[in-house]
Amino acid sequence: MSEQFRMGAEVARLRETVAALHAELVRYGLVAWTAGNVSARVPGRSLMVIKPSGVSYDDLRPDNMVVCDLDGVVVEGDLAPSSDTAAHAYVYRSMPDVGGVVHTHSTYATAWAARGESIPCHLTAQADEFGGEIPVGPFALIGGDDIGKGIVATLSGHRSPAVLMRNHGVFTIGRNARAAVKAAVMCEDVARTAHLARTLGQPTPIAAEDIDSLYERYQNVYGQTTVPAANR
Amino acid sequence: MSEQFRMGAEVARLRETVAALHAELVRYGLVAWTAGNVSARVPGRSLMVIKPSGVSYDDLRPDNMVVCDLDGVVVEGDLAPSSDTAAHAYVYRSMPDVGGVVHTHSTYATAWAARGESIPCHLTAQADEFGGEIPVGPFALIGGDDIGKGIVATLSGHRSPAVLMRNHGVFTIGRNARAAVKAAVMCEDVARTAHLARTLGQPTPIAAEDIDSLYERYQNVYGQTTVPAANR
Amino acid sequence: MSEQFRMGAEVARLRETVAALHAELVRYGLVAWTAGNVSARVPGRSLMVIKPSGVSYDDLRPDNMVVCDLDGVVVEGDLAPSSDTAAHAYVYRSMPDVGGVVHTHSTYATAWAARGESIPCHLTAQADEFGGEIPVGPFALIGGDDIGKGIVATLSGHRSPAVLMRNHGVFTIGRNARAAVKAAVMCEDVARTAHLARTLGQPTPIAAEDIDSLYERYQNVYGQTTVPAANR
Amino acid sequence: MSEQFRMGAEVARLRETVAALHAELVRYGLVAWTAGNVSARVPGRSLMVIKPSGVSYDDLRPDNMVVCDLDGVVVEGDLAPSSDTAAHAYVYRSMPDVGGVVHTHSTYATAWAARGESIPCHLTAQADEFGGEIPVGPFALIGGDDIGKGIVATLSGHRSPAVLMRNHGVFTIGRNARAAVKAAVMCEDVARTAHLARTLGQPTPIAAEDIDSLYERYQNVYGQTTVPAANR
Repeated sequence: MSEQFRMGAEVARLRETVAALHAELVRYGLVAWTAGNVSARVPGRSLMVIKPSGVSYDDLRPDNMVVCDLDGVVVEGDLAPSSDTAAHAYVYRSMPDVGGVVHTHSTYATAWAARGESIPCHLTAQADEFGGEIPVGPFALIGGDDIGKGIVATLSGHRSPAVLMRNHGVFTIGRNARAAVKAAVMCEDVARTAHLARTLGQPTPIAAEDIDSLYERYQNVYGQTTVPAANR
Repeated sequence: MSEQFRMGAEVARLRETVAALHAELVRYGLVAWTAGNVSARVPGRSLMVIKPSGVSYDDLRPDNMVVCDLDGVVVEGDLAPSSDTAAHAYVYRSMPDVGGVVHTHSTYATAWAARGESIPCHLTAQADEFGGEIPVGPFALIGGDDIGKGIVATLSGHRSPAVLMRNHGVFTIGRNARAAVKAAVMCEDVARTAHLARTLGQPTPIAAEDIDSLYERYQNVYGQTTVPAANR
Repeated sequence: MSEQFRMGAEVARLRETVAALHAELVRYGLVAWTAGNVSARVPGRSLMVIKPSGVSYDDLRPDNMVVCDLDGVVVEGDLAPSSDTAAHAYVYRSMPDVGGVVHTHSTYATAWAARGESIPCHLTAQADEFGGEIPVGPFALIGGDDIGKGIVATLSGHRSPAVLMRNHGVFTIGRNARAAVKAAVMCEDVARTAHLARTLGQPTPIAAEDIDSLYERYQNVYGQTTVPAANR
Repeated sequence: MSEQFRMGAEVARLRETVAALHAELVRYGLVAWTAGNVSARVPGRSLMVIKPSGVSYDDLRPDNMVVCDLDGVVVEGDLAPSSDTAAHAYVYRSMPDVGGVVHTHSTYATAWAARGESIPCHLTAQADEFGGEIPVGPFALIGGDDIGKGIVATLSGHRSPAVLMRNHGVFTIGRNARAAVKAAVMCEDVARTAHLARTLGQPTPIAAEDIDSLYERYQNVYGQTTVPAANR
């Protein structure tokens, strides 16, 4: 019973976190109308907390978030979960270290995705967060496991926490939901800068060993080592 | 009298809805100064509620919305209705299933309209909402039925709820005003992404049967089936 | 003395109007830091009300606006007037129907100005407000009457209330300050759309007689005929 | 002890200033997530006040700013200082007239930096603030003095208070932190306009003597000569 209580508190905390993180998607202009979603894994449980489908960002509150199992079946909540639930669930089933997933159609990243072009690494900020290029995943229809499979196949063993799904948009992963949101914000930021750089010529390459060095440092040194990782 | 009361309540509700929906045009950056408008059909009556002409979005309130008949003649209201009233009225007269109409000069969509180019469907989000390309309508002068005729001729029998009127801007339709506003928001969103994708090369095509499949699913499965359609 | 009182009230009203209109420049993203200004002629007096130089938009209030005569000499106010005061003053001296002047470096319009290219009229919104192309004025250094002369030489006898000063930015005029601000907002809006349209090809021309017809109608029919022109 | 008190008050004032100035980076869209920072030299002391590393702009307050010596060692504060502290410190050690340093990855300026192209001076606003082109500095890895050396080598004896660090972003300097923030805002503004101008053709050059004349005037005449320089 104390275990059950702890789990209830954990789910309640994640309902708050997930509802609040959607405001970051709005703040950074990554979403239009209702087209983007955040989820979080419930640590130690085969559960996730995710946005309800088609509900306006203004109306998101902790209590209308939806709790699903990792097959995407609703466990708690009155609303239907995001139409992207199957993709989130597939990622959680396949990648045990992932604690958060974000999906957007953010403009510049989706423009690269529409051409099926990965974003080459010409910026130190991209080396820091993505460790190199941001890769392209396959075209996949919604409604089954195809999107999830495409995400997992592309990101497994890759440094990048972001994948550009062809003709579709961006999925990002993180050790928790906040890290996945950060990756979504930074993905659009570098996609925009890379787009503009390319519009007037060719960016200067960064040497592979410099990318490695930037990535290592950023992942291990940046931020406050005494604050919870979720806030970094 | 009870019928008259019910109608008064319905008009009052639509005055609120129409006034409030203009804030979405502002929020999504679809309008500059006073250049965009929303209207709603009064269900079961030959009436519509529309923005007054040349009034700032800051100053829109339920009580300064204008009620017109479907010839564009003012029935209730102290202000002149939108200069686009004739076009809205023509659409309502010609397309009985349309419950809302929106007009904007949103930047990216209007750039496609200035070239007279339809927006090809290279994004799943466009397949979802528009079912394929967003078509171009004819050049037409304001002041008679020419704009309305151009909208109806282009959209009748077309999946797209949006038309790019040549050298002018966007008109969208929906089963109600909120759906038409959503179409205006999504039209600009996909017009922007398509513009950026094309700036650096050619987007990858999506197979026609995949577009069909995405459109079918989105129109029938997305969102909350238990909430009013107006909020989806 | 009653006359003097009336004049004091008029100046007080214009201090409020001019201070408040700067917020529209901020809202529409036309200005960075302190680089843009609005002025209004005091009707029937050889005076104008203008922004103080180098003061943040957050700090503008009616009582720190500066009143100058039409040679740019400060008549009322503790702060130095805008460094563009001489240009505003020259316009008021030369164009008696002008009641308001606005200057910005708004991004897209200034990009056209940097190339010394006028904006051709490919949009009905441009035909409405500008009656055709938005013309380019000469390169001129700040500090004397050269900018003012360039504005007046370009706009005299031209329909457009906006001029793109070469390598510099935009000046707009209007029958009052609000109309000049509206012209500045619409100038950036059409400059942006025209830029984007041209990026991917050539916009379709609009026939000269259609431009004339749109301009005539918009100037005479649009908006509320019973509200003060300043609010249209 | 009175001297120590004065110093404490000065540091307290700079904590407020530096915390508050980060809001300008957010307002002008120069930063995403936590990727940008402001610092101020403590006048007459070998100390600086700087942003903590990896902390959200929403959470910055005077009391979580970090005070470091000019080797980057923390003197006051519970949090680790910005990961760019070594670069700020190097600038303060090498350029005694610099009282403020700002670092951003602002989009358009960083796009020029990604191509390793300086921004040529085709705008009077750029002549005013930067006195000519905005130069490019070398590629340098974070973690030692390389970035600081690159900034100082590029800006020493140059009119421009901004340098585009190759594949990285922008560093700006000023006589105080506010002036450095202004330079960061204006750098992005002119980088954006220059980018757009170049997208559709070649901007018209400005004669070197006109650039000199604009720069001289702006540095000496613009703004309020009776207000503290920090507010100009």
